Amino acid sequence: MRLRNKPWAKDKLLEYPQYVVHNPEQNRGKWNEVFDAPQPLHIEIGTGKGRFITGMAKANPHINYIGIEMQESVIVSALDRIIEEELSNLKLMNVDAAELAKYFAPGDVDRVYLNFSDPWPKTRHEKRRLTFKSFLSVYEEILVPKGEIHFKTDNQGLFEYSLKSFSEYGLLLKYLSLDLHQSDFEGNIMTEYEEKFSSLGNRIYRCEVQYKN
Amino acid sequence: MRLRNKPWAKDKLLEYPQYVVHNPEQNRGKWNEVFDAPQPLHIEIGTGKGRFITGMAKANPHINYIGIEMQESVIVSALDRIIEEELSNLKLMNVDAAELAKYFAPGDVDRVYLNFSDPWPKTRHEKRRLTFKSFLSVYEEILVPKGEIHFKTDNQGLFEYSLKSFSEYGLLLKYLSLDLHQSDFEGNIMTEYEEKFSSLGNRIYRCEVQYKN
Repeated sequence: MRLRNKPWAKDKLLEYPQYVVHNPEQNRGKWNEVFDAPQPLHIEIGTGKGRFITGMAKANPHINYIGIEMQESVIVSALDRIIEEELSNLKLMNVDAAELAKYFAPGDVDRVYLNFSDPWPKTRHEKRRLTFKSFLSVYEEILVPKGEIHFKTDNQGLFEYSLKSFSEYGLLLKYLSLDLHQSDFEGNIMTEYEEKFSSLGNRIYRCEVQYKN
Repeated sequence: MRLRNKPWAKDKLLEYPQYVVHNPEQNRGKWNEVFDAPQPLHIEIGTGKGRFITGMAKANPHINYIGIEMQESVIVSALDRIIEEELSNLKLMNVDAAELAKYFAPGDVDRVYLNFSDPWPKTRHEKRRLTFKSFLSVYEEILVPKGEIHFKTDNQGLFEYSLKSFSEYGLLLKYLSLDLHQSDFEGNIMTEYEEKFSSLGNRIYRCEVQYKN
């Protein structure tokens, strides 16, 4: 994603504590108290401008959502969507995915979404891919037993890599589509990227994997 | 594959005992004695007209191959190829894949190839797919420890199903290409089907999976 410098982004995030969680480490183990209703918690890592997570939160009011995005200048766009929609079951966090275990206790999270994550195609950048084993270990730490990762991308190389990485980690492949938009999958909510790249004719790949414990 | 009735096929197979193994149960546990040289044994299940296995046997003289095909009227075409090429490291067997453990002892086989297997798309025919768990169990019985299955197909539904079936069985995904002919995989030997369907623009999917024990 091309990043525009938005020097005002940090201040804007601070202005909306009802939507943007500051000091998330204080909620570790008690996230239900942060939301209006105690409900399952699904998080999206790399939430970008928030189209997916906002759509999910609107479609599934019985689930709580947190969109996590490291880039301030991007997450402010997600914030604009939440302000507009006045969603009570969605929050944002401006933190690094590698540090999620600081903010979530074991079992705090019921599902992880990864959508169109940065492919980091060079082998020397493998460790930065959000499906690298060190990240799979972080997700395992914060998920419920038998928790799931739902992942979609149009990047063939990242998808191939990720299926191998999931297999090596011992995750169970429960759902797989090699052409999501031609499949019978219902209720797909598109990300900004997904709309753009599928309209160019790119296939969208999607899978669901489950931790064994 | 459209099958032509070839009433003479059975007799022709019997005429070439040096290429077609009859009474394969007699070789169980001692397949090395059947070939000129004691070498690793790779088998292809559903060998069709034999283009793949013949090409592999020519390219890899240090490996022994057996092509297995249930249809007499199809396997005779593979026989014609072997007769023409005079290959000493390739044999054929006209048997049912479900019964392979009758013919191969544990560890007799070093690798299993599945190429463009019948997709059996209807759910009620799942048990007939060569990547169904009962077949994965047969392959496990006859393979060496950490033995591998190498699988390719142009059928998206079969490939999706198979990756899930492999995962559920506990196989490790070691190699994956979602577009083989656009990948950097070297030494690909095409089957008859593969040439036909890739020339129509179909993607070829390929994976290698490994048993954990």
